[in-house]
Amino acid sequence: VRKLRVGVLVSGAGTLLQGILDEADLYEVAVVLSDRPTIEGLSRAERAGVPTVVVDWAEYGKDRRPEFSAACARVLRAHDVDLACNAGFMRILTAEYFEILGVPAMNSHPALLPAFSGAHGVRDALAHGVKVTGTTIHFATEDLDAGPIILQACEAVRGDDTEASLHERIKQHERRLYPEAIRLFAQGRLKMEGHRVHILDQQA
Amino acid sequence: VRKLRVGVLVSGAGTLLQGILDEADLYEVAVVLSDRPTIEGLSRAERAGVPTVVVDWAEYGKDRRPEFSAACARVLRAHDVDLACNAGFMRILTAEYFEILGVPAMNSHPALLPAFSGAHGVRDALAHGVKVTGTTIHFATEDLDAGPIILQACEAVRGDDTEASLHERIKQHERRLYPEAIRLFAQGRLKMEGHRVHILDQQA
Repeated sequence: VRKLRVGVLVSGAGTLLQGILDEADLYEVAVVLSDRPTIEGLSRAERAGVPTVVVDWAEYGKDRRPEFSAACARVLRAHDVDLACNAGFMRILTAEYFEILGVPAMNSHPALLPAFSGAHGVRDALAHGVKVTGTTIHFATEDLDAGPIILQACEAVRGDDTEASLHERIKQHERRLYPEAIRLFAQGRLKMEGHRVHILDQQA
Repeated sequence: VRKLRVGVLVSGAGTLLQGILDEADLYEVAVVLSDRPTIEGLSRAERAGVPTVVVDWAEYGKDRRPEFSAACARVLRAHDVDLACNAGFMRILTAEYFEILGVPAMNSHPALLPAFSGAHGVRDALAHGVKVTGTTIHFATEDLDAGPIILQACEAVRGDDTEASLHERIKQHERRLYPEAIRLFAQGRLKMEGHRVHILDQQA
């Protein structure tokens, strides 16, 4: 049986990528794509023997976001992925990405969506004064941070939390939850019903 | 030392009121106000020896919401309350209420605010497909469901949950959290900083 081939998109240190690499069993990471060269995420992929590709944002820029998005999707298609996972990827991908990609995409967000979507999920939650926040693994769609929710986990906000301290605890949930979501997908256990994702029981 | 005098506003069965009555120690329930006669919430108050007042919504109606709100506030003032707690109270109170009341107000919402505010917090969360929701105890202000958050608790959504089954588990959190929030207020441990509520450590 062919394992599920996962493409992972990264922008930085790649700690979430590391979690996905470490837990690979029912899936394999087929390619790691970065929007910039020489980041630690690429080194992690190389150490794991996974092909890497850079689609350099600096060569595109904001005015050519659709072209950048299309280029990312073509790289993933060329590596024959079954699923594309944003893991700390900091670029917004346009409709072209999803059209060309042709397979599902996932994203991890450091808040309990639909609350605190956007680029500063941890900071915004702290500023609002919530007492619990968390992390969300969801299907990525053209509508930023609004795709169907797969898994969520809660984290209590502490009185002395800074954005950094809270984000670090949230990342621990992400590193556990993201591989779990990919595994559920690999097992065919994520069933869509409208905007809801049902998690089917494991087959005997 | 005079105990904190709490006014509780109810509209129905009063199970949350019962939780507040059962846990009364650092505070006392000084009056229970209902927006309609002959509800179980009033009977619970009577059994606990707490004065009850009905401000009958049927005598006001939507066109006289400010007058209804003012009447509620005057009842609470007449009973010299230090804090007014909505506990399953189904009427929206206008600015007049808060102006005349003159003391802080609290509310309980069956979702993790700022997500799923409004009259159907449980139903809306289920329809959105979130995997965790919960309950929020917050200071009530003129901005419906938007006042500073005091306490929150999470509850996982199960695959076979209905609105009723999920709401029942959320209510269990409410019955625990609401008395805790009132107790923190009675102890002077809730400190506002902008929109955030800091919970101070208990004094030795």
